[in-house]
Amino acid sequence: MRAAIFRNGEIVVDRMAEPKPGPGQVLVKTLACGICGSDLHARQHAPRMVEMAKKTGRTPMDLSRDVVFGHEFCCEIVDYGPGTARKLKPGTHVCSLPALLTPEGIKGIGYSNDFVGGYAEAMLLSEPLLLEVPNGLAPEHAALTEPLAVGVHAVAKANIGGGEVPLVIGCGPVGLAVIAALKIKGLHPIVAADYSPARRALAAQLGADIVVDPLTSQPYATWAEHAQMSEAEKAARPPLQAMLPALKPAVIFECVGVPGLLQQVFEGAPRDARIVVVGVCMESDRCEPMLGIMKELNVQYVLGYTPEEFSGSLRLIAEGQVDAAAMVTAEVGIDGVAKAFADLANPEAHTKIIVQPWR
Amino acid sequence: MRAAIFRNGEIVVDRMAEPKPGPGQVLVKTLACGICGSDLHARQHAPRMVEMAKKTGRTPMDLSRDVVFGHEFCCEIVDYGPGTARKLKPGTHVCSLPALLTPEGIKGIGYSNDFVGGYAEAMLLSEPLLLEVPNGLAPEHAALTEPLAVGVHAVAKANIGGGEVPLVIGCGPVGLAVIAALKIKGLHPIVAADYSPARRALAAQLGADIVVDPLTSQPYATWAEHAQMSEAEKAARPPLQAMLPALKPAVIFECVGVPGLLQQVFEGAPRDARIVVVGVCMESDRCEPMLGIMKELNVQYVLGYTPEEFSGSLRLIAEGQVDAAAMVTAEVGIDGVAKAFADLANPEAHTKIIVQPWR
Repeated sequence: MRAAIFRNGEIVVDRMAEPKPGPGQVLVKTLACGICGSDLHARQHAPRMVEMAKKTGRTPMDLSRDVVFGHEFCCEIVDYGPGTARKLKPGTHVCSLPALLTPEGIKGIGYSNDFVGGYAEAMLLSEPLLLEVPNGLAPEHAALTEPLAVGVHAVAKANIGGGEVPLVIGCGPVGLAVIAALKIKGLHPIVAADYSPARRALAAQLGADIVVDPLTSQPYATWAEHAQMSEAEKAARPPLQAMLPALKPAVIFECVGVPGLLQQVFEGAPRDARIVVVGVCMESDRCEPMLGIMKELNVQYVLGYTPEEFSGSLRLIAEGQVDAAAMVTAEVGIDGVAKAFADLANPEAHTKIIVQPWR
Repeated sequence: MRAAIFRNGEIVVDRMAEPKPGPGQVLVKTLACGICGSDLHARQHAPRMVEMAKKTGRTPMDLSRDVVFGHEFCCEIVDYGPGTARKLKPGTHVCSLPALLTPEGIKGIGYSNDFVGGYAEAMLLSEPLLLEVPNGLAPEHAALTEPLAVGVHAVAKANIGGGEVPLVIGCGPVGLAVIAALKIKGLHPIVAADYSPARRALAAQLGADIVVDPLTSQPYATWAEHAQMSEAEKAARPPLQAMLPALKPAVIFECVGVPGLLQQVFEGAPRDARIVVVGVCMESDRCEPMLGIMKELNVQYVLGYTPEEFSGSLRLIAEGQVDAAAMVTAEVGIDGVAKAFADLANPEAHTKIIVQPWR
């Protein structure tokens, strides 16, 4: 089969053997697979990713061997391995958590030397993790389940009580997923900031009530304008708190993931803000703890999602509650993956590019 | 009156005018005032503290003018200013939040050019903030209300549900206050780490169940030994979680406050740990966000306390629920303050030094 392979730091197209399903596993044809910002990061900072995997007790990639990226996929069932119940017929469209149950334990799909990800014509999934794609949903949109689940999880970890005003910093796929998840939660107004006009338009389309261009307005000042307490809320405060600015609680989603961004958030955040770090910053970062201390900030780092958040996200897309299609800006075949990685550097041109390995 | 004054980066003894109580204010004789780690920090990093105050909208110290530190005090009422109710008689021993209500708003005591702190023979307090010292408690122990309140607040902000196992990193006055507050909460076992045998002995005296010398055992490994889930807890986990280590939730109190410490905590912390930053790191700091992300860590920065936590802390000491006296390792007069600042560098010799300005 053909695949776009991460080899010697580059994405190259080559042939490789089609995988064979083991016990409990399923051979699937990859119909659609989104390119994730983490894949771009991984190509650029692979040795760092290996180091971090080691530090957190995960199996690191062996960079001297091939890796096929791709963990946002929708597939079609082709064949079953031994010991499978085969409830879903061949031809059924399915999604799955990017994980494979093997006799050696659970293994991640997407950054593995042993199991190919979605930038290949076929891959292996685990039968117990299969989710049938409902409502005749297009594979290109079902493949957005994974990135949406990231936003759903981030919002769940933000532990929202109801009175908060959210601010989303960065409206790439992660920020957009957070906005979509916030909209589902009914939390308004949602304030979102991005330098790119195209990304701001998408943010509004997915549910942001106020979009800010940081070049022309300060996102935290705009947030504060829309986070003023009501007169009743002001009156309910204890005496010493009444001397502080009368702002509703802030929940700030950092969806950029580059060094220096968290420090910017620390500087802009109001007192008692909760900051959810969803952007994946792979490099070492510097910030001033005194700002965190003097404002009593809370920082929640998040990663991934629960199985329930994942299946719930597929449902949200299938039921049309999230306009996932809005995020897709291009579809490419295996030969187009390398160029797509480069194209994604321009936020004006692209948000989510879907790989269709059969193309 | 005499005072130990922060002037040109040093602590010097000099005479200054006795303050006059304005409307609502009270002139008090300072009976006892603890030397806080923040005072040591302030002497060493004063320009940085000024910069941080500016960044967070507070009134910074003017370093070209005198400052009298001291915000952990117990005083005796001497005289009242105009417009006071005078419910407490002159001679009454009182504590107060280190804050002064003035016509220009609330002002901090301890890092101010305009209002002296507790390293002077007399100071001003605000009548509405006075707390009468109960039970004939010694002023030297009543002065520990403020540092204990820091621990009480940190534990309150840790949002403890009941099943957590706490780990306290650093057993200086802040760590010891956290341990005392954890003991009051009934959370066990309390694991605490410090390089100093004297500090470890104090930690045990104040309520730590397990004390660790990081030179001989890894604090996080020791914590893990004492945080094993029961069989019932193991059985109650959802299937995917059952593949993770069977550890109770971690709440880690960072009570050191030097650069690099948070990164150490990030490296040692188990998945999903909540980290409460109580140590005040005045310098810029570097850490690896990927560790936070891959472990989904939560970092709560804390500062100060509420008025209720403050008055509650005085009660805890007066009722003998916290063995505050154990922390006091020396008492000095105004002439001894400069040397005490130097002496506090040795954790084996000293924990809390109390200034008795009348001495």
